Amino acid sequence: MYHHIKQLMYTVRIGQPDPHFGNMLLEQFGGANGELAAAMQYSVQGLNCDDPERKDLLMDVGTEELSHLEVVGTLARMHLKPLKNDRKAAHADPLIAIAGGGGVNLYNSAGDAWTADYLKITGELDVDLRSNIAAEARAKIVYERLIDFTDDQGTIDALQFLMTREITHMKAFTAALESMGKPTFSIGKIPPTPGLVDQYFNDSTGVGDRGEPDARGPWNEGGDWEMVTAPAFQELESASAGTRAPGSNGGSRRH
Amino acid sequence: MYHHIKQLMYTVRIGQPDPHFGNMLLEQFGGANGELAAAMQYSVQGLNCDDPERKDLLMDVGTEELSHLEVVGTLARMHLKPLKNDRKAAHADPLIAIAGGGGVNLYNSAGDAWTADYLKITGELDVDLRSNIAAEARAKIVYERLIDFTDDQGTIDALQFLMTREITHMKAFTAALESMGKPTFSIGKIPPTPGLVDQYFNDSTGVGDRGEPDARGPWNEGGDWEMVTAPAFQELESASAGTRAPGSNGGSRRH
Amino acid sequence: MYHHIKQLMYTVRIGQPDPHFGNMLLEQFGGANGELAAAMQYSVQGLNCDDPERKDLLMDVGTEELSHLEVVGTLARMHLKPLKNDRKAAHADPLIAIAGGGGVNLYNSAGDAWTADYLKITGELDVDLRSNIAAEARAKIVYERLIDFTDDQGTIDALQFLMTREITHMKAFTAALESMGKPTFSIGKIPPTPGLVDQYFNDSTGVGDRGEPDARGPWNEGGDWEMVTAPAFQELESASAGTRAPGSNGGSRRH
Amino acid sequence: MYHHIKQLMYTVRIGQPDPHFGNMLLEQFGGANGELAAAMQYSVQGLNCDDPERKDLLMDVGTEELSHLEVVGTLARMHLKPLKNDRKAAHADPLIAIAGGGGVNLYNSAGDAWTADYLKITGELDVDLRSNIAAEARAKIVYERLIDFTDDQGTIDALQFLMTREITHMKAFTAALESMGKPTFSIGKIPPTPGLVDQYFNDSTGVGDRGEPDARGPWNEGGDWEMVTAPAFQELESASAGTRAPGSNGGSRRH
Amino acid sequence: MYHHIKQLMYTVRIGQPDPHFGNMLLEQFGGANGELAAAMQYSVQGLNCDDPERKDLLMDVGTEELSHLEVVGTLARMHLKPLKNDRKAAHADPLIAIAGGGGVNLYNSAGDAWTADYLKITGELDVDLRSNIAAEARAKIVYERLIDFTDDQGTIDALQFLMTREITHMKAFTAALESMGKPTFSIGKIPPTPGLVDQYFNDSTGVGDRGEPDARGPWNEGGDWEMVTAPAFQELESASAGTRAPGSNGGSRRH
Amino acid sequence: MYHHIKQLMYTVRIGQPDPHFGNMLLEQFGGANGELAAAMQYSVQGLNCDDPERKDLLMDVGTEELSHLEVVGTLARMHLKPLKNDRKAAHADPLIAIAGGGGVNLYNSAGDAWTADYLKITGELDVDLRSNIAAEARAKIVYERLIDFTDDQGTIDALQFLMTREITHMKAFTAALESMGKPTFSIGKIPPTPGLVDQYFNDSTGVGDRGEPDARGPWNEGGDWEMVTAPAFQELESASAGTRAPGSNGGSRRH
Repeated sequence: MYHHIKQLMYTVRIGQPDPHFGNMLLEQFGGANGELAAAMQYSVQGLNCDDPERKDLLMDVGTEELSHLEVVGTLARMHLKPLKNDRKAAHADPLIAIAGGGGVNLYNSAGDAWTADYLKITGELDVDLRSNIAAEARAKIVYERLIDFTDDQGTIDALQFLMTREITHMKAFTAALESMGKPTFSIGKIPPTPGLVDQYFNDSTGVGDRGEPDARGPWNEGGDWEMVTAPAFQELESASAGTRAPGSNGGSRRH
Repeated sequence: MYHHIKQLMYTVRIGQPDPHFGNMLLEQFGGANGELAAAMQYSVQGLNCDDPERKDLLMDVGTEELSHLEVVGTLARMHLKPLKNDRKAAHADPLIAIAGGGGVNLYNSAGDAWTADYLKITGELDVDLRSNIAAEARAKIVYERLIDFTDDQGTIDALQFLMTREITHMKAFTAALESMGKPTFSIGKIPPTPGLVDQYFNDSTGVGDRGEPDARGPWNEGGDWEMVTAPAFQELESASAGTRAPGSNGGSRRH
Repeated sequence: MYHHIKQLMYTVRIGQPDPHFGNMLLEQFGGANGELAAAMQYSVQGLNCDDPERKDLLMDVGTEELSHLEVVGTLARMHLKPLKNDRKAAHADPLIAIAGGGGVNLYNSAGDAWTADYLKITGELDVDLRSNIAAEARAKIVYERLIDFTDDQGTIDALQFLMTREITHMKAFTAALESMGKPTFSIGKIPPTPGLVDQYFNDSTGVGDRGEPDARGPWNEGGDWEMVTAPAFQELESASAGTRAPGSNGGSRRH
Repeated sequence: MYHHIKQLMYTVRIGQPDPHFGNMLLEQFGGANGELAAAMQYSVQGLNCDDPERKDLLMDVGTEELSHLEVVGTLARMHLKPLKNDRKAAHADPLIAIAGGGGVNLYNSAGDAWTADYLKITGELDVDLRSNIAAEARAKIVYERLIDFTDDQGTIDALQFLMTREITHMKAFTAALESMGKPTFSIGKIPPTPGLVDQYFNDSTGVGDRGEPDARGPWNEGGDWEMVTAPAFQELESASAGTRAPGSNGGSRRH
Repeated sequence: MYHHIKQLMYTVRIGQPDPHFGNMLLEQFGGANGELAAAMQYSVQGLNCDDPERKDLLMDVGTEELSHLEVVGTLARMHLKPLKNDRKAAHADPLIAIAGGGGVNLYNSAGDAWTADYLKITGELDVDLRSNIAAEARAKIVYERLIDFTDDQGTIDALQFLMTREITHMKAFTAALESMGKPTFSIGKIPPTPGLVDQYFNDSTGVGDRGEPDARGPWNEGGDWEMVTAPAFQELESASAGTRAPGSNGGSRRH
Repeated sequence: MYHHIKQLMYTVRIGQPDPHFGNMLLEQFGGANGELAAAMQYSVQGLNCDDPERKDLLMDVGTEELSHLEVVGTLARMHLKPLKNDRKAAHADPLIAIAGGGGVNLYNSAGDAWTADYLKITGELDVDLRSNIAAEARAKIVYERLIDFTDDQGTIDALQFLMTREITHMKAFTAALESMGKPTFSIGKIPPTPGLVDQYFNDSTGVGDRGEPDARGPWNEGGDWEMVTAPAFQELESASAGTRAPGSNGGSRRH
């Protein structure tokens, strides 16, 4: 059950409206990594969640994101209001000008309607928390870019508030995941196939046009890693040598 | 530059086609967490990537996912082929039956066309790697659910292969992220506001209909956490006490 | 600024879960006329609204719809939970079964992701209120159909509560529109062209295959109405008579 | 069965093409409240309609909207034609320039493809008529905004014609609804719960950042209205007073 | 300018309604290759067309497809009407049952809303005609599949009528394209690069899991065709031989 | 099974980045007729194909298009990279600037996410080949328009390479279709109704506002064509003459 208080979580004040910047702000209102996406992702995960304690976390943060949605929407509205009457300003966002009369709607900066396809909700708590950690990282970088695109101090202050909160949430979701005590890389119940799980397939080879190397790093060497020349590559080598790959190890996979 | 070898990365063999299961398999062909989504997410991230070594990783895995797309598509095709002529089987997926003649297309199990809205690509390497770790976790759990929904051994074997590889990729992306040496919770360049970043807003309070508690845990207590009763709640308390919240700390935020 | 109380606005209790009915319930969770659509339509209209009193109305109702979203989502979750493990039940909604693990998401009954294309937001208050009156009427009839499709008393009770509230909102929006004191059929500032506005174009003529008449009624006769044979029809008559329509009344329109 | 006459319902003539304005005009060609949306909404409602007289009305207006679609498309085409060869003009709508060669397509001003998600069709005649009244109001205000964004007289004249017809249709749909003789606020067959239907939930409280009041008006006082402090608020008050709300009135709802 | 005659172009009569078949019929109402797609593709192409004679063809066929839309919608409505009240029948299409009250809407058989993304409109007449020839072939095969999925004679007769007309249109569009007198494979004005245009890249090699050969045919041998081992393959061969491809022919392309 | 070689199929070099042109290039990256659409259409058709020889063709070309996707993406990336920091350049594509940090994603020039709705895949080989011939013609004209919109020689050279290959593919698909030896206009197995198939319905009549004639041509005269005044027109004539059309030929169709 929700209650709304008319005051904003962060009072926004701006100087001169900047329609192009207002259009960009819509990324965090109705965009893929914006506040509605965050609010809905966490709240619906919470609704599905059977762990009462982490459910509370999901609802706490989901609700805070609704308050953020209101802040960023109010900020965008201030920057976009001139579109109602100013023909030149309207070029910054014709959809907001003509269809919205200068009012905001749940679009991103390209006028795409918000879609639940943006959400990552699996009904598996630890997986959902991983999706949320990544989602907060994305939201943080988008707010940073917005800050880099304006000089208006009131706008910057509001964005700094919102950006900071994304890091807060990232920390909370990480703590919640870690406190579940699941072994690293353990997802669900069915274990991966031993051996195969440690094979790194080198499926992209050669040197790129700008000198990109065929690289080694901790993601494919050391520990249990076994470097495997990609299956296709081996087939090609066999083919170019005039032979057929035997594929004789009794299994169905080729490598 | 890509090359295709006609052999599949994993040869699929099935017993009796199961149209309803074939419909479910489309989740990993044209679905939100499926193989095309994985292939495109990593490959386009790779195309944008300025770090030549991790770019190679992104292209290696992105290319492997294309091979997986082919495997899972072939598997789904086998289970869905009867839809072309069997009226009752066609109820499992009318779209595949009538529009596809039993052939697969880039739809999910609900017949929704694949959309790039599924992708998480930010052009910020460490953020993208976090999105990829979460994506692999999601793909793993979806494969596990598919395994739980079939008894066909050939199908299970293929899905076990594909599921295992998701864990492999999850490990690789994690190692790549860690080897970047970024401090924890450091995203982009602008630091969060000290103090504010450690405040946990308790925005959902009370006890739920099924006894859900207002919970404490490492995500809101211990360390630097400061528990903050939600701003709205404070306003409500003031209101119910007939007073206005002073908001006297000189800032724009209320708490 | 929002606050969430863990208790539901209406406590839901169900008997036997009915997966097919759970799938239908998603219409009011993530469907075109569902609770998220209502919550977002009114709240975003409120955010754009310059009339402080009706803005309060929009926020009151928009917030209540968020509480409804939680109720209907909880109800759907109860009916869909068996999909996680029950293969036959999963046929009712493969997307929820495989991608959601039995958990709800912002889809409609056909698995389509919620989209802001459902919303009607113009930034013109009286127009928005008209859209809201129609939206409440649609939501009411959908709840009625859901009630007709279940025998579970707990489910019916919850739906009756939600359905009733739609009528409440319809009454409130109607009163808010009427209290603005705008003349009937006055939208915006530019008046329609006199004369032309009273012409009814009879663009569909003849008798239909099931005897549908070419009808007269208060929508085209009486008052100021002038019945006009459709422009195309007149051209056709002229053509069949071997002549060209003169179009000699000095205007650009033909009738 | 349809017939097409090559002459437009309103002959369009323009002076200087204005590519930015042409882009805006697409709102009424392939946009959410545009002519295709109107034509399809009314025609499909008509196809479903069992009331032969109002079915005729729906087909009359649906057909007229097809003629409007042709007029507004021709007008947009004239303003957008220079995009084929003029690089600077192409910035007004790169999609029309590159994908369309200067030709129109069923997009809105942001290049979003038209979608049937814009339509409101319920198969319940009086509800559909309410949706249509609101749709005409929206279309009217959009035409008015377009008129405000151009100085070209030929364009203004055509838009004035089209705008006027929306009011005509609004009048006709209103008359058709009223002539059905249904009691006010009666939708479908199941009556709302007495008492509950007259309760206004005050779910948004306090005073906003710009002084927005917690308002009273005919939408929540007078007549049968009963003002109810929002359920969540009551829970909060109880909580802040250290007590639990009794919820002892025997029902499932809290207020 | 359009006119509508109430009689259908083809009177539809059915025996027993078949809800599952009605759901399938929606493919030709609101589906990717259905009648609305055809009507809009040809009519909007016609609106853009500067060749007055082929513009007439586009409008003739575009208008006929509107009449077909009405026929197939009426047919689907007959088969879907029982969904309003019959719970079991409603499983065939819950969206039509709950959101539509048994009435049709512009969805396909999977409940996806019609989108203008289905359309192929380029503003280049001969290219558009090629798209139309292909579109008619697709519509024909879909009607054939529908005929194969029903035994109801009235339904079959109506579908046979509609299917026949697709071949008629295919013939007409082919004649219109041929009568333009453009050389084969001449599109637009910029000629392809000689030599390169005749090279066939063998980008998929080896033998498939089911014995699929690396094939030769008139599409890669004979005439001017030059068979080229794929660029990637050559790089791989060089790599496996320990050398770098020289790429010494002065151009930027590798082969 | 796929393998990736780091070198591009065509090395791209550009002079000065042109953000507006980079935005336009996205049409061929994530647009309706772009390289991902081509790659997926042919590869998925290939996956469904039971004719092993033409399946090889589909995989050859499908794989080449993946290499093209990489080339055009790299080219777009070069032109769009300045958007990350340049506020004015960012107006060319705010979505790429803010959400992508200057990196590309699978959008078109209007920021619409790529969707599988762009694909034409029917599971009927000859029909699919027709769709492919049309698809190549569309891609060719789009590349030509892009060439017309830039003066950068490196960009032009790359586009000329890509454009040429579309003609190559068009030739190959045409040869593959012709070598199947199917009679002209024979699609599927059910023949069209004799007589009816040769009737041309003149559904658009009169003379247009710009003098468009009611035209005759090889698409409606000569050969087996029978010119038929449109059904609706005949009804109209009868109606205007005060009579009812007899419809006395015993069939269900009116003409």
